[in-house]
Amino acid sequence: MSDIILVNGLILADPANGQAVPHGMTVISRDRLVQANVSKEEIQGKYTVIDCSDCLIMPGLINCHTHAAMSLFRGLADDLPLGTWLTDYIFPSETRHAGPEFVYLGTKLSAVEMALGGITTFADGYFHMEEAARAVIDVGLRAVVAQGILDVATRDCLVPGAWKSRIEEFLSACPKNSLISPALFCHSAYLCGPDTFVAAQKICSEQGLLLFTHASETEGEVDEISEKYGARPFEHLSNIGILRKGLVAVHAIHLTDTEKQLLAKSGAAAVHCPEANMKLASGAARVQDLLNLGVVVGLGTDGPASNNNLDLFEEMRSASLMGKLISGNPESMAARTVVNMATIGGAKVLGMEDKIGSLHSGKKADVAIVALDRPHLTPVYDPISHLVYSAKASDVRDVIVNGEIIVRQGRIMTVDEAELRAQVRAMAADIAKDLSIGNHGAVN
Amino acid sequence: MSDIILVNGLILADPANGQAVPHGMTVISRDRLVQANVSKEEIQGKYTVIDCSDCLIMPGLINCHTHAAMSLFRGLADDLPLGTWLTDYIFPSETRHAGPEFVYLGTKLSAVEMALGGITTFADGYFHMEEAARAVIDVGLRAVVAQGILDVATRDCLVPGAWKSRIEEFLSACPKNSLISPALFCHSAYLCGPDTFVAAQKICSEQGLLLFTHASETEGEVDEISEKYGARPFEHLSNIGILRKGLVAVHAIHLTDTEKQLLAKSGAAAVHCPEANMKLASGAARVQDLLNLGVVVGLGTDGPASNNNLDLFEEMRSASLMGKLISGNPESMAARTVVNMATIGGAKVLGMEDKIGSLHSGKKADVAIVALDRPHLTPVYDPISHLVYSAKASDVRDVIVNGEIIVRQGRIMTVDEAELRAQVRAMAADIAKDLSIGNHGAVN
Repeated sequence: MSDIILVNGLILADPANGQAVPHGMTVISRDRLVQANVSKEEIQGKYTVIDCSDCLIMPGLINCHTHAAMSLFRGLADDLPLGTWLTDYIFPSETRHAGPEFVYLGTKLSAVEMALGGITTFADGYFHMEEAARAVIDVGLRAVVAQGILDVATRDCLVPGAWKSRIEEFLSACPKNSLISPALFCHSAYLCGPDTFVAAQKICSEQGLLLFTHASETEGEVDEISEKYGARPFEHLSNIGILRKGLVAVHAIHLTDTEKQLLAKSGAAAVHCPEANMKLASGAARVQDLLNLGVVVGLGTDGPASNNNLDLFEEMRSASLMGKLISGNPESMAARTVVNMATIGGAKVLGMEDKIGSLHSGKKADVAIVALDRPHLTPVYDPISHLVYSAKASDVRDVIVNGEIIVRQGRIMTVDEAELRAQVRAMAADIAKDLSIGNHGAVN
Repeated sequence: MSDIILVNGLILADPANGQAVPHGMTVISRDRLVQANVSKEEIQGKYTVIDCSDCLIMPGLINCHTHAAMSLFRGLADDLPLGTWLTDYIFPSETRHAGPEFVYLGTKLSAVEMALGGITTFADGYFHMEEAARAVIDVGLRAVVAQGILDVATRDCLVPGAWKSRIEEFLSACPKNSLISPALFCHSAYLCGPDTFVAAQKICSEQGLLLFTHASETEGEVDEISEKYGARPFEHLSNIGILRKGLVAVHAIHLTDTEKQLLAKSGAAAVHCPEANMKLASGAARVQDLLNLGVVVGLGTDGPASNNNLDLFEEMRSASLMGKLISGNPESMAARTVVNMATIGGAKVLGMEDKIGSLHSGKKADVAIVALDRPHLTPVYDPISHLVYSAKASDVRDVIVNGEIIVRQGRIMTVDEAELRAQVRAMAADIAKDLSIGNHGAVN
């Protein structure tokens, strides 16, 4: 692979300062951004030149929470209470179908969708996560692949409580690749007891892995944990010694002021998934409050079965709009705040802020190039406003991950998209048959 | 123009029944959908054939509220309180720039954006509306062009109170074209007194025109109207005899149960603009309540300066997500409900349900063809779910209005898009200079 030069356009190098400025030249050498001035003569023949005229060059987006393989359940059932959705549709389908090949195929489809939408890194949590890692590598994204841990039996750990041997197997089988960071995912305080959390945390500490959990997603969860442990979810996590740096708490919706303070002091990070939270009527996280307290917060799409896509542009917009609505303050969750969350904020959540999240020399070359020459982005008074309030994932023209061009002119370069879609449709036809629902994907 | 045949794919002919079914053939003869079985031999050479394999054929979307020309102010200023935004940015820019050429150009840009996103009809409200009509005709969309009426001086009516002669001028100058329906737009009860409303209503009744108004958008408006008239906005409109069939009330957010009942009994229609309402922190309309009471409700984007795009796919998703969040009920504002609002519901709001909003034989041929062969729309268990929860405006492949193909393979066929963008950028550079803000569109 030859080195790359990006020329022309505007650049948002540092989301923390929020300024997009006219751009001269960015050099990508192997997997890194380097400071260099290259003459016209040197460019000829030696570099892959990407002309970014009428584009915005920005750090690749970071999706801090999803269950990527669940794209195979996308739109299977909607507009239902969480219980009905899980019990009548998702659980039976997972039990029957969510094996290794399902995880590979579903994750691959999701990785392609995310790449096309400018996401260069994502944090995933599901089962058979060595298969997810394989799919991520094949597409060329960067990912944290977190193996799910529950106290009940799961698809890849049939004996309740036997998760430790499954984790050993996963950590051993997970491909060693610079794009992949393995991690653990204790599902939640209602499906993992204190002993499980503490033991998982010990493994993570010893091996330098992140620990994820869903926390305070619904009022029902708050009631259940309060009744069982005499403490609200974030108090409970703190009481058992889990709420600390290295923990990523997903959702963080129903927090008292005391819990917000606990979270802020702990060094744990939070992930905000506004569209899934709205769609399931879970509630609205008070993200501006958390940010004001200094909590590190990233953005996540949540799984494509409950969203139903993996579009971080939509999540940025929804994070801003929902934040303004619930606070009654149009200045809340400003465009620059959410762009920051979707880039360097997400990098901090994943402990990767030294590698990704901004376009500084020496960082990994994870770059999204957004076309601004579209009617809905015309004129351009403020490109950062456009990213949040006007742009779509489909405005992403090119994507570079780890110095490799994986999307060019809106096309995925690393996999055969049509073949992948055909494979997915075949598997979806089986899933639909079992549930006796329509599958129009297979019809066509 | 030759007749058109759509073949293959799925079709959502009747949004009210919400079923997308495998499609055989749809014949478009001149400007209308006709029932016909055409043999393969007859097709050859006589028809423009559009293959809709892997697509969903649906009625064109209907955007029931915007201020299209304001695309020229898109992203000029965001994350601000309404007062600051209006007083420091929008009003001074309108005073200086919003002349006839501005309205033509801005409306043209917006019409192109809407066409590309599957919108075939929109209801517009602004000034110099004969210019808006010209732009709409040039792009080939269908529109209700409503001339703004205020008790204060406006850009095209410099003498306060002289609006009647301006209306006469507008109605005389507005192009007579089957795509264009002129209408009047009394801005709001806080900027139009009862006499103005009554006089405008009289003109509308006599000439068979719709009357639009913004109603109950903010708490501040409710307080102001209550103090001035001793009645809340919808009570006030009812008291002065305006709340009746033919009135389109935009926003309808802060309604008491009494006002909801008044609205339902009146036969007036409502328009829901969820993204603008969230962005300006105006509040959340209780749309499911209104629908349950039998109110005719359409969807609107509101103007591109406060949204900041004209994407009805986003509005469908936001209407559903916001509705679920504020009700705490994931079954509220289901996918089928919002697709209905965005098609036949909108047609009813505009009094055009006999012409548009569904794909029944004899109706005008206003059709959107949505590509389903995208990673984020794979697999397809339920195409209606996909329209709301997964799809983007950029998934619209082809658009037909009044029997004319105006978008093909994602490209606008009726205007030179690059030339239009260049004209917009030039005007935006002037606007930015006056406000001493950036204009990155002109830089490139």
